[in-house]
Amino acid sequence: MKYKKIDEEDIKYLTSVVGEDSIFVGEENIHDDYSGDELAGIERYPEALIYAKNTEEISKVLRYANENHISVTTRGQGTGLVGGSIALCGGIMLSTEKMNQILEIDEENLTVTVEPGVLLMELTEFVESHDLFYPPDPGEKSASIGGNISTNAGGMRAVKYGVTRDYVRGIEFVLPNGEIMNFGGKIVKNSSGYSLKDMVVGAEGTLGVVSKLILKLLPLPKYKLSLLIPFEDLSKAIKTVPEIIKSKNIPTAIEFMQGEVILAAEEFLGKKFPDNSSDAYLLLQFDGNSKEELENAYEKVADICLDCEALDVLIADTDERHDSIWSARGAFLEAIKASTTHMDECDVVVPRNKVSDFVIFTHQLQEKYNMRISSFGHAGDGNLHIYLLKDEMDDETWNKKAGEVFKKMYNKAFEMGGAVSGEHGIGFAKIPYLEDEFGEEGMELFRGIKLAFDPNEIMNPGKLGSNYKVNLYQ
Amino acid sequence: MKYKKIDEEDIKYLTSVVGEDSIFVGEENIHDDYSGDELAGIERYPEALIYAKNTEEISKVLRYANENHISVTTRGQGTGLVGGSIALCGGIMLSTEKMNQILEIDEENLTVTVEPGVLLMELTEFVESHDLFYPPDPGEKSASIGGNISTNAGGMRAVKYGVTRDYVRGIEFVLPNGEIMNFGGKIVKNSSGYSLKDMVVGAEGTLGVVSKLILKLLPLPKYKLSLLIPFEDLSKAIKTVPEIIKSKNIPTAIEFMQGEVILAAEEFLGKKFPDNSSDAYLLLQFDGNSKEELENAYEKVADICLDCEALDVLIADTDERHDSIWSARGAFLEAIKASTTHMDECDVVVPRNKVSDFVIFTHQLQEKYNMRISSFGHAGDGNLHIYLLKDEMDDETWNKKAGEVFKKMYNKAFEMGGAVSGEHGIGFAKIPYLEDEFGEEGMELFRGIKLAFDPNEIMNPGKLGSNYKVNLYQ
Repeated sequence: MKYKKIDEEDIKYLTSVVGEDSIFVGEENIHDDYSGDELAGIERYPEALIYAKNTEEISKVLRYANENHISVTTRGQGTGLVGGSIALCGGIMLSTEKMNQILEIDEENLTVTVEPGVLLMELTEFVESHDLFYPPDPGEKSASIGGNISTNAGGMRAVKYGVTRDYVRGIEFVLPNGEIMNFGGKIVKNSSGYSLKDMVVGAEGTLGVVSKLILKLLPLPKYKLSLLIPFEDLSKAIKTVPEIIKSKNIPTAIEFMQGEVILAAEEFLGKKFPDNSSDAYLLLQFDGNSKEELENAYEKVADICLDCEALDVLIADTDERHDSIWSARGAFLEAIKASTTHMDECDVVVPRNKVSDFVIFTHQLQEKYNMRISSFGHAGDGNLHIYLLKDEMDDETWNKKAGEVFKKMYNKAFEMGGAVSGEHGIGFAKIPYLEDEFGEEGMELFRGIKLAFDPNEIMNPGKLGSNYKVNLYQ
Repeated sequence: MKYKKIDEEDIKYLTSVVGEDSIFVGEENIHDDYSGDELAGIERYPEALIYAKNTEEISKVLRYANENHISVTTRGQGTGLVGGSIALCGGIMLSTEKMNQILEIDEENLTVTVEPGVLLMELTEFVESHDLFYPPDPGEKSASIGGNISTNAGGMRAVKYGVTRDYVRGIEFVLPNGEIMNFGGKIVKNSSGYSLKDMVVGAEGTLGVVSKLILKLLPLPKYKLSLLIPFEDLSKAIKTVPEIIKSKNIPTAIEFMQGEVILAAEEFLGKKFPDNSSDAYLLLQFDGNSKEELENAYEKVADICLDCEALDVLIADTDERHDSIWSARGAFLEAIKASTTHMDECDVVVPRNKVSDFVIFTHQLQEKYNMRISSFGHAGDGNLHIYLLKDEMDDETWNKKAGEVFKKMYNKAFEMGGAVSGEHGIGFAKIPYLEDEFGEEGMELFRGIKLAFDPNEIMNPGKLGSNYKVNLYQ
């Protein structure tokens, strides 16, 4: 796949569309943030960085790129972990970060309409100030909502509330040929054709550009409460989760964590966690509209945990205690990163009653390969975050070992009925594992869908559905 | 688009796959149920009717049809309202009604695995006997679950719980070339490629055949209660709905009904409704896990209704009263049908704060065209069921008037940000209105997606995504 390189004439046209202050050309004029995302070790500069200010600009830029066969990579805040927003073929990087307005809150339809550059934390704060609730809660609060849509981001509350896809009602979408489409809307039900909205959610910018979003809201639950529950070991902790699910008192979140990760977070934050004496913990959150409802649920679950050999049940029922626990939980990724020289991650998802077996399997790999493997994650929804840590390994050993360990982990997940990614997406780093999961037949479906939207394949080449294959590691 | 007619040799092969007792050839040997669905006035026989008993048979039949360019129309119970399962081009009708086993209930993952021929009412009864809950609740309880998936059926509980799509975790799917694929699974989160599962839900059998389903369950709410609320007129009733939504006490269901429809249902069922003295009613349902939670919610909502000029609030808090109201509600469609010579329906969906304006608009059309127009529907989710009644009109007048009225209603819905179908799907009867909604650009996307799955276009021709256009009315 060859793309046209951007020349003087292209720059002239693109400048006429977005204005001089919104286009930056050439590596020397582009901030190095835009050469990568949170996937470590990869750097590729676009030829031109463009900040779009509105849908019409996106439309004009795409139409021009499509006619001239210039590749386009859309970027929100660049907080992705799998290289989804890296401009592998140069071309245009289209940033939506300046399209960051909350356009409307509609209390009669319980929706909020936003531009894609709004940050998750801004959205959360805004809707909560209206006593409303946007349930998806991915770890990275400074991600843009457009990025969340692109990866179908999940987060901790998926146990009870589902993921980003479940809260997208409508999308204004710009096709690669510049056409502006509306998929869905403020409507609650829809059986009108293939669900184009659901095709675009999780498409990682490979089908076109999300230019506006209508999101579903819920009433904000009035009360919340967390339980921190120490166990003798991780296996005992995780095996408790299916018992909790079976009891039908579904918490908002069920996270698992290892003692060593908590110690790393304490060091990273310079703050103490309420308890760090055990090897393994479950962290549960409950929410509800009455104290009785909440107490009823958490007391039953606490009893189940004690029956499953929990060492204790620590209740965090004030905002302060609650926030201290969850801010430590929020720092895990950064804390693990700070504890090593380099790391790579696996965001596998398995049925929730298989989590324990999967974690035991990673412990066996840790022994076998003599490599630190840290994990934490969403025990309640089967989505694990597993980090291979390079520490003092030399590059050659690391590349070889990490490759083998990843292959083994993903294959184990597929055996268990799992999938490559629970919430981070595929980007380009996980494409080989997606091929392992779906086989040639599935990849052919992806390519066919891609071509239906983007026949000239200008959008985000080298990612999902692309015929353009790239392996930056070779 | 020309399809191969089925000949002796085809029959020989197909019989070798499914056995003599599972194939019926020729109009004289096929029961007339299989020449149509619940869309009145259309009759087309398949050339051969095949009952599949398992996935392998589906795979072999499809592979053969694909290689020989024979059209295939999949059929569940044939309860669709828009002609989705009519074999417009003859060919093979593939019935999944004998694949009707509930395969597994998994209480640790809160899923049930079923074959597509299981009936909605069987599924509901089965999971409730395990104290679990499958929330989607389309009106037609004798529909097959495979059919529900194909239309992304909605139902009354969408206000609180969402629609069929929201409860599909995994699909075993047979591609037209016979390949057996698995999309999703028991996993709760998934960001691994375009969501093929969501593409297949609502695809009305145009992409391949659903051969197995993994459905998400919830704990069964312990208590439920209904409120029947009379109003002076329909406008006042429906205008109350956005106030209820704003109050953040979200009922499970919010239905609206007109006095005349209740009278028709009483006559049809030979049973009295608790009240029939008013012109308009809201019917609300609440569910929850404690009586206090329920009382708290319904008392607030009852006050809101009285503030909005409700004439009374009738509480149905016993199973008996509850069932009597909802069985009347369930008979509306049949009751309206019995009250006229012929009818046609519109399943439009609009934002829920536009329902009142839309119903007023249909009343204006009723006057203008001197045609009875009855409606009822899901006020809480904006999905209206509007019936044009032929009564004593001659065919020519009916065809002309109905065509004009439909056109006006759909265009009004699009103006309001609505869509052609909330839950019945497009079939072939609503294809022209889908074109009005999506335009050429959108229809082209549908065709592209169709071709990604079904390059030889054997699946359900004349429906969604098809290049084959048919107008049986001309």
